[in-house]
Amino acid sequence: MLGEDLASAGLGITLDDVAPGRSRLRMAVRDDMVNGHAIVHGGLVFTLADSAFAVACNSHGVVTVAAGADITFTAPARLGDVLVAEAVETDTFGRSGVTDVRVTRESDGVVIAVFRGRSRSLSRPIPGVAQGLPEED
Amino acid sequence: MLGEDLASAGLGITLDDVAPGRSRLRMAVRDDMVNGHAIVHGGLVFTLADSAFAVACNSHGVVTVAAGADITFTAPARLGDVLVAEAVETDTFGRSGVTDVRVTRESDGVVIAVFRGRSRSLSRPIPGVAQGLPEED
Amino acid sequence: MLGEDLASAGLGITLDDVAPGRSRLRMAVRDDMVNGHAIVHGGLVFTLADSAFAVACNSHGVVTVAAGADITFTAPARLGDVLVAEAVETDTFGRSGVTDVRVTRESDGVVIAVFRGRSRSLSRPIPGVAQGLPEED
Amino acid sequence: MLGEDLASAGLGITLDDVAPGRSRLRMAVRDDMVNGHAIVHGGLVFTLADSAFAVACNSHGVVTVAAGADITFTAPARLGDVLVAEAVETDTFGRSGVTDVRVTRESDGVVIAVFRGRSRSLSRPIPGVAQGLPEED
Repeated sequence: MLGEDLASAGLGITLDDVAPGRSRLRMAVRDDMVNGHAIVHGGLVFTLADSAFAVACNSHGVVTVAAGADITFTAPARLGDVLVAEAVETDTFGRSGVTDVRVTRESDGVVIAVFRGRSRSLSRPIPGVAQGLPEED
Repeated sequence: MLGEDLASAGLGITLDDVAPGRSRLRMAVRDDMVNGHAIVHGGLVFTLADSAFAVACNSHGVVTVAAGADITFTAPARLGDVLVAEAVETDTFGRSGVTDVRVTRESDGVVIAVFRGRSRSLSRPIPGVAQGLPEED
Repeated sequence: MLGEDLASAGLGITLDDVAPGRSRLRMAVRDDMVNGHAIVHGGLVFTLADSAFAVACNSHGVVTVAAGADITFTAPARLGDVLVAEAVETDTFGRSGVTDVRVTRESDGVVIAVFRGRSRSLSRPIPGVAQGLPEED
Repeated sequence: MLGEDLASAGLGITLDDVAPGRSRLRMAVRDDMVNGHAIVHGGLVFTLADSAFAVACNSHGVVTVAAGADITFTAPARLGDVLVAEAVETDTFGRSGVTDVRVTRESDGVVIAVFRGRSRSLSRPIPGVAQGLPEED
């Protein structure tokens, strides 16, 4: 799935790990991702977290889309930092779900952002992924 | 400010308008911003909104940073769409502020996302911008 | 609808006005709503806003429930304050909706909280209210 | 602290446990907390979670206030349910903090709501509580 996502690919986002309801992705902060003070654009931290969210909640084999998300920025990330996003789908109820993502700096483990994504699953299976369709709600 | 932001520049985000507490930015959805279904990555919609948020809340001449934000995705945007983000800082209290951003598709006015940013202003003026420092809180 | 809501009634929440997608409710801060510093519990400010949200998004005659909400507290409210919550449903898309609520202190108009509710409408009409059922999504 | 909070007391909210950065509170759903369908008002679920949030982030002996919060409702709670709120302060940075609260139904462990609170600590110690003042930010 991430392979078809040109936006993630263009940002150099790569997949470390995926399991049912979980994922870990990473992104290195490049010079085209920062402002004049060498601090990364918060939107790209969000994009990394959002990609991890999408991988985690699509891991069940059913097409699942982002309904929304909240992010809190806890520390600035800078040019050269490698950021790691760990996603855990904590709750599903009907076709809805909640996935928490933490973005940390790999070198020292400092938390850069905490993200909570809200998802909705659709009725369509993802080709080639083992599936468990939710019940109607 | 947007001129020094290489991330926004790399996404082709441009400034239409800025006024105290307000801004309007735009971004055309390119083929490197979409997934395999030609739908734009939600992270880039967030990035556009976040850029509009930053321009609006830094318009007072005081360095102001994003503390966090919430986004709700209301409709998918597709390859070729031109997205317009309108930001309005609705509330300031102490050093904190709330800025609402709506992202619409220019061709038909359909709302793509609604975003609410939470800001904190710092004590430093932005060089070259008329300023009003907030009181301590 | 508010009349059947014993929780709102118990807090003395009353309806000022309702129109399609809008409502205005009020609540006076009593001595059983505050902490030891005479400041109102944030949960009760949320409850007032949530009631206004419910009235606004059920005004179309279709049973609509709260999926979630975000609140930002902008100023403390105190014993004796009369709080007014104004709700406006700004966006609907499929069965989902977004409603913004502002809570202000009536005496001076100071904003106490800004609230954004996320709703889902169900397939059931509300007896006795003119209706417009949403399409499936 | 909860003892001075008349709003929590009036709702019958009680403290099960408190530790640094953590708390567990409970509330039984009474007939004055529900609507005409015997479902508890979401505002009161929020109030329980908000009380747990306050206890957890004030456990360090420094006055800490709620800046805002987000809640997602995952299942309805009904008359007679006993609700348990478990709060964990997951992140602090400067004077800010993030606290996650899960509200479950005691009888079967079903999750009723997930809540994320955003806090700001002030410079004042809480009398009689061991303290660790945050650094300026």
